[in-house]
Amino acid sequence: MAIEAARLSPSLVAAAFLGRRSPPTPPLLRRLCLLLPRRSLLASASTSSSPASLGGDGRVVALSSSELRKRRSSTSSTPATGEDDKLRSLRRLFARPDIAIDAYIVPSQDAHQSEFIAECFMRRAYLTGFTGSAGTAVVTKNNAAFWTDGRYFLQAEKELSHDWTLMRSGNHGVPTTIEWLNDVLPSGSRVGIDPFLFSSDAAEELKTAISDKNHELILIRDFNLVDEIWGESRPAPPKEPTRVHAIKYAGVDVASKLSFVRSQLDENGCDTVVISMLDEVAWLLNMRGSDVPHSPVFYSYLTVEMSTATLFVDSNKVSEEVLEHLKKAGVKLKSYKAILSDVERLAEKGAKLWLDSSSVNAAIVSVFRSGCDRYMGKRGKTGRQIGKKASSDDPRQNMELNGLYKGSPVTLAKSVKNEAEIRGMKNSHLRDAAALAEFWCWIEEEVRNSVALTEVQVAENLLEFRRKQDGFIETSFDTISGYGANGAIIHYRPTPDSCSSVGSDNLFLLDSGAQYVDGTTDITRTVHFGEPSPRQKECFTRVLQGHIALDQAVFPERTPGFVLDVLARSSLWKIGLDYRHGTGHGVGAALNVHEGPQSISYRYGNLTALQKGMIVSNEPGYYEDNSFGIRIENLLLVKEVNLANSFGGISYLGFEKLTFVPIQRKLIDLPLLSPSEINWVNEYHEQVWEKVSPFLSGNLLNWLLVNTRPL
Amino acid sequence: MAIEAARLSPSLVAAAFLGRRSPPTPPLLRRLCLLLPRRSLLASASTSSSPASLGGDGRVVALSSSELRKRRSSTSSTPATGEDDKLRSLRRLFARPDIAIDAYIVPSQDAHQSEFIAECFMRRAYLTGFTGSAGTAVVTKNNAAFWTDGRYFLQAEKELSHDWTLMRSGNHGVPTTIEWLNDVLPSGSRVGIDPFLFSSDAAEELKTAISDKNHELILIRDFNLVDEIWGESRPAPPKEPTRVHAIKYAGVDVASKLSFVRSQLDENGCDTVVISMLDEVAWLLNMRGSDVPHSPVFYSYLTVEMSTATLFVDSNKVSEEVLEHLKKAGVKLKSYKAILSDVERLAEKGAKLWLDSSSVNAAIVSVFRSGCDRYMGKRGKTGRQIGKKASSDDPRQNMELNGLYKGSPVTLAKSVKNEAEIRGMKNSHLRDAAALAEFWCWIEEEVRNSVALTEVQVAENLLEFRRKQDGFIETSFDTISGYGANGAIIHYRPTPDSCSSVGSDNLFLLDSGAQYVDGTTDITRTVHFGEPSPRQKECFTRVLQGHIALDQAVFPERTPGFVLDVLARSSLWKIGLDYRHGTGHGVGAALNVHEGPQSISYRYGNLTALQKGMIVSNEPGYYEDNSFGIRIENLLLVKEVNLANSFGGISYLGFEKLTFVPIQRKLIDLPLLSPSEINWVNEYHEQVWEKVSPFLSGNLLNWLLVNTRPL
Repeated sequence: MAIEAARLSPSLVAAAFLGRRSPPTPPLLRRLCLLLPRRSLLASASTSSSPASLGGDGRVVALSSSELRKRRSSTSSTPATGEDDKLRSLRRLFARPDIAIDAYIVPSQDAHQSEFIAECFMRRAYLTGFTGSAGTAVVTKNNAAFWTDGRYFLQAEKELSHDWTLMRSGNHGVPTTIEWLNDVLPSGSRVGIDPFLFSSDAAEELKTAISDKNHELILIRDFNLVDEIWGESRPAPPKEPTRVHAIKYAGVDVASKLSFVRSQLDENGCDTVVISMLDEVAWLLNMRGSDVPHSPVFYSYLTVEMSTATLFVDSNKVSEEVLEHLKKAGVKLKSYKAILSDVERLAEKGAKLWLDSSSVNAAIVSVFRSGCDRYMGKRGKTGRQIGKKASSDDPRQNMELNGLYKGSPVTLAKSVKNEAEIRGMKNSHLRDAAALAEFWCWIEEEVRNSVALTEVQVAENLLEFRRKQDGFIETSFDTISGYGANGAIIHYRPTPDSCSSVGSDNLFLLDSGAQYVDGTTDITRTVHFGEPSPRQKECFTRVLQGHIALDQAVFPERTPGFVLDVLARSSLWKIGLDYRHGTGHGVGAALNVHEGPQSISYRYGNLTALQKGMIVSNEPGYYEDNSFGIRIENLLLVKEVNLANSFGGISYLGFEKLTFVPIQRKLIDLPLLSPSEINWVNEYHEQVWEKVSPFLSGNLLNWLLVNTRPL
Repeated sequence: MAIEAARLSPSLVAAAFLGRRSPPTPPLLRRLCLLLPRRSLLASASTSSSPASLGGDGRVVALSSSELRKRRSSTSSTPATGEDDKLRSLRRLFARPDIAIDAYIVPSQDAHQSEFIAECFMRRAYLTGFTGSAGTAVVTKNNAAFWTDGRYFLQAEKELSHDWTLMRSGNHGVPTTIEWLNDVLPSGSRVGIDPFLFSSDAAEELKTAISDKNHELILIRDFNLVDEIWGESRPAPPKEPTRVHAIKYAGVDVASKLSFVRSQLDENGCDTVVISMLDEVAWLLNMRGSDVPHSPVFYSYLTVEMSTATLFVDSNKVSEEVLEHLKKAGVKLKSYKAILSDVERLAEKGAKLWLDSSSVNAAIVSVFRSGCDRYMGKRGKTGRQIGKKASSDDPRQNMELNGLYKGSPVTLAKSVKNEAEIRGMKNSHLRDAAALAEFWCWIEEEVRNSVALTEVQVAENLLEFRRKQDGFIETSFDTISGYGANGAIIHYRPTPDSCSSVGSDNLFLLDSGAQYVDGTTDITRTVHFGEPSPRQKECFTRVLQGHIALDQAVFPERTPGFVLDVLARSSLWKIGLDYRHGTGHGVGAALNVHEGPQSISYRYGNLTALQKGMIVSNEPGYYEDNSFGIRIENLLLVKEVNLANSFGGISYLGFEKLTFVPIQRKLIDLPLLSPSEINWVNEYHEQVWEKVSPFLSGNLLNWLLVNTRPL
């Protein structure tokens, strides 16, 4: 699944589209954090987080994009009131004495900076009527403005009412939300936010930026203003049950993981850490859930103290089995909402808290800080000496009073997979490959027989092939199924009413993935069911050369991913082509399809070194506007390579492929490939045959044989 | 000429030797500035700046390393006093009422952050007796410590007296100068420096760092304490005449260059800029000099105001012709020393000054700041409002009162060569190639005839071949002539008494360059006069593959050099090899062999984009300790490439070779090369033949023909 520039800030979108390679210097990075989900920064990842809901019958249900869309339009549209009414109701709240604000910002986030969110948290969509994944609404007493990026201009024009001004982020002269607020509000205004929906860092930045015009940032913690007007029709929070992620897949038990976190606490002089990223909680507790589409996570917080740990989750999500599992690891349960009072209590008793302020929301951090102040007050001024404010070399690390503001200790640990996780990833990839072989064999036959299949139908059929595989849970993101010109839209989502039929006159790009009980997949293949043009073959072959160059890379330990990005691009650059997305993102093991901290990108802000055991995607592409799109994506495992030399006495790392699905041979312009590149293709296809054929039989075997024969 | 890690800070040296790729984050970068010449940071450049002097007869004289060494030992050694006496005399000065310090830091720099410095400024060498190029001496009332890096440990042990403690920078547990000062001095001590020898940034950092222990930094501006004890025997400052750099080589006249600088002043709201880098003054005024070895520059400062410009230089260096040239461009003359009073005068009248605080020394900046204070005082407190302290996104840019602290406007302009400069570089490279062809033909014959030639003799003979070329001035750095194991010492300098003979049993690495009236060269070739081992061929071929990959790179405009560095390394990484220096540095046009701002390095702190017209070296290598060294270096011109596509509507850039000297064919392990790499070698050698054969005749033609025949 491709990584995109578009979800990032307006300024970076502009940069990407102009082909500028502006480096994210720390100040810029900080600006980016503002109003943006943390995930998209960490992994420079994420295609659109499709607004979608899951069934409420307690079973894990996978729904296709189109089903999700149907569902949404039937449940989330408001009964009688038009959009005007919503704005009017919202503004009426502005005047309430307990609120008293001049503006309210409604971002797309949930309280955990999640990529995919539950329907009840889709406040921005409810308020604006805009159903796309990305955007920020800002409402003042007299204005209502909505920011989104180039992917969504047309959709936003259609969906927003006339009361809204569409701000086309990245277009010349379009102000940022902050510039606009500073411009339209009279000096000294009060700008309200729901502090749960902003990371602490983002809220701080916002506060500073609007203070230029003497505006005050008002954290309205007790209720969300959109929820107030949403009222009865607001969907209930997800109540899906959680489950234990079996130790044979998790590899390491919860007690060991907690004890690692505690050693980190000890090293950093802290008593407690607050974990708020949902995949970090799931990983740490060897639990999975299905509160949101595509990611097997559940709404919760976790605090780990030196001798206890507390999971804040709605108790109806916890079965007897899960309860037993948690008990065994010494994890107590409290209600999801109790996190605030618990943090307050910890602060007031002088606990030293570790908070990743780039992910932990501003509600938690502000409660912690006021609790600290009370603690200090009680102890008199001398209390101030307990912690000293000191900024370290690492801009993400800051000690202030009793708070250590530093990246979560779980992020890196989770990204380095253990043997069981690697085994699960390998096994699930083979079953996924079998499903894909079956799918490709089927669709070739259908197209050959001139059966009219829309892009949506193709995605739905793919889902059926995957569903037959053991341990299948759901898709790991909305399938990108793009024929011809649609393939050139990097984050294309077909809709049933407007999508193309897949034919044999152009390229077909299919980017999809699945959640299995033992692993997560993400694969893109581009094929032509008829005769590709020389241009298409040339472009495909250049993309393939980039894919091969990255796949074959060997590099010294401590190399950050961005150093390798050029390897995937240089074959395209040689003929003046490029692609406007990163080359690789991290992938969770039976967890989120996008995870940090590593990435392989042309942006060089992410200095995280690739480490043995990490998983990254390798997905260069090329997109010819209004014509066709190409992407070739495998997942790779970072491994140590044994070489004859080891200069500097260090380890050298390389990649091992996890994905085993044929690359269409007819799209390869053979004379462009070097002998070693031809070897790569042949060896890869030989591996595909060896690993996947045991899962197949009958005509599928024949299909695989034909599609893996040497060039 | 290779770029090294070793000249950088101790911490970075350690990082390099451990194979760590620690990114220079801004705070680290700032730390690095401390006590280090700016050049080595800007271009991550510079091999040792050999202490050497030039003849004083008014003619441009090029001396070989050994000659320079002889000269130095005969002139700069002190008469009767031992080192003890020097330390004693220095410490006696500490107590003088007008000095009153507890410690004095003696760095290796001159007042302009030059790579090569005049003998009279070699205070650190005089004081310590250590004649290597890099090191910092710190003397307290009770201690004398000297820091140098791994290249010089042996030499320092030999040359330092027992009164000195050798601090082996980069070794485990060795403190930095600042850590040491903070450790040995009683709290509240006064640490003296000569503010001319520290960039303003470095002095500020030092001041902050020692303030942790309440030490005060004392700028002793009126005299240098080492000069005081050096007394009569101190060499006179260089009095070499300057010359006009003809417009046919410079391409753009002084008036146009000044008017560009003035447009920059205008854009930045400044009245005046102070230029203190010697190559920037030389470039801006189309003048050259010979005050220091290897770089055709002269000691001077330049101020450019909106309507005037003033060159601060000793008048005896300015001939009638130069005077006329300067007059025509409206440039006034003042004495070198008048810079301080002029800056003071400008500050006191409220001028807004642009100062590159990374290169302008602390003496100038401190005089400016006190002048500003007086100006503000005169105008009352309202004066403070003229400028406001604001830090921009660019950490190097800072507006404070009337000073704009920002990189010099000349740096980038100088690095982008105009047509005349490019023509001069190309022409001088062909003459240099002819000299090298003659040299290689000669040495092959000598070795074949078993003539015993030392590494020093080889370098001296090379100089003679170059000297015969039109427009030759001098070497552009001390020739690195390393046979066998000596080749593995990246910054090896042969000495007459200890160097090896060049034979036919091992590899011979020769890195050399010249200053011509129209251009500057820098080339490395590695050859074997006998039968190379398979290991040597494999390593050589891997280095060559890296060289080819970088040479052939095509990349979008706005790409910083470090993005391309991996291309030069990946062939080595594939077998677990690497090299501990950067891959490319900028080169001046008939100017310094190392210049910024661009570089191609595995350190990713330098975000300067490569631009059309810039020149960079391409010099991957491999060094097997105690065995052999390999480096292949050409200079490349960045040019726009015309491609069939231009994705993003931007320019794509590539390289054009400037260097045309055969690469030894017998060192190539042919089966390792791809067909396109073989083509590269054959096409390059065809070009060498076409371009260089017109300069040769007789047996030289035959040598060239044999050495450029296809693989």
